[in-house]
Amino acid sequence: MTSAIDFYFDFASPYGYFASTCIDDIASRNGRGVAWHPILLDIVYKVNGTGAPVQHPIKTEYLKNDVARTARFHGIDYKRPTHFPIPTQAAERAVLWVQDHRGGDLSAEFAKSIFRALYVDDVNIGDPAELVRLGEALGIDGAALDIGMHSPAAKDHLKAEIDLAMARGVFGSPFVIVDGEPFWGFDRFAQVEACLKHGRI
Amino acid sequence: MTSAIDFYFDFASPYGYFASTCIDDIASRNGRGVAWHPILLDIVYKVNGTGAPVQHPIKTEYLKNDVARTARFHGIDYKRPTHFPIPTQAAERAVLWVQDHRGGDLSAEFAKSIFRALYVDDVNIGDPAELVRLGEALGIDGAALDIGMHSPAAKDHLKAEIDLAMARGVFGSPFVIVDGEPFWGFDRFAQVEACLKHGRI
Repeated sequence: MTSAIDFYFDFASPYGYFASTCIDDIASRNGRGVAWHPILLDIVYKVNGTGAPVQHPIKTEYLKNDVARTARFHGIDYKRPTHFPIPTQAAERAVLWVQDHRGGDLSAEFAKSIFRALYVDDVNIGDPAELVRLGEALGIDGAALDIGMHSPAAKDHLKAEIDLAMARGVFGSPFVIVDGEPFWGFDRFAQVEACLKHGRI
Repeated sequence: MTSAIDFYFDFASPYGYFASTCIDDIASRNGRGVAWHPILLDIVYKVNGTGAPVQHPIKTEYLKNDVARTARFHGIDYKRPTHFPIPTQAAERAVLWVQDHRGGDLSAEFAKSIFRALYVDDVNIGDPAELVRLGEALGIDGAALDIGMHSPAAKDHLKAEIDLAMARGVFGSPFVIVDGEPFWGFDRFAQVEACLKHGRI
């Protein structure tokens, strides 16, 4: 197998951030590429009628602690964002605009830098000016990105990504599909790697 | 630290079964014992207003596959039960009756045999006669168990376990508490072990 594996994420998902720090390495050491797919969980939860996993008070405190602990356990840089929850539409449209105009490799780097900005450097990634700044640091034309992320084409692309994700059974973040096999959650990444290595588990 | 760690589970939870196959080993190799606490998730979900994680059709199929795959990944015996979903009150009251009358070690063995009966040998553990048979195989007086599991004392004990679990923030199965630190899910067992080994993560 040499086709890409599919990685679905929302910048609003800290476990999606954890996944973003290692998904490319996991895939590449097994001879595979990664297709990065930003989606909006708010829409996915609403359409599926599942609700967000953190919406119940009893889980909120647990998950806050679990996120920080899981970062420490895996040695991942993490600082709880002050800008949270945060709207992620602009960031996701920006990533897709870069994907459409500069290709998948640069857009994946851009997505990683947005994740890191939010979960390490406490940047307000809901602010388009911050997205432009992050894009320019990677050599992306800031003025074109600013226009592009607000374009109807970028909006349509994100909507289509979300529709396709739901059609494929995606219901959370991170969500990885390897040759038709779905894996939900950063805690399934050992299984993702086993599946890449052995074809099946 | 030498005090017991707390292990909350419902026989209705396959991930609780996975946890039951290794929690005693994880604790004992770190010099700790385990307090086994059966709870009824239906009540926990209802009181907390969270709903069951499998109640949404889009997740049901995913989780069915994930349970079987996770068993294979960890090398745990598993056969999808035909008696499922299954009422677990009688089994949980029976375990608590054994705990109250024969002690924690035998009741933990009994709980493991009930888990295995359901998830490996496809036994209908909702049937009190099957619980008596499983108890007798461990040297428990079947007639006394049959009366005991239906006694007001056993019902009161289970109700009190559930109330206490919720007061401690338990909202799923398996759920482990190590010196005040809560861990939800079989996929957090590597973190449970790290916490036992190092005091914190």
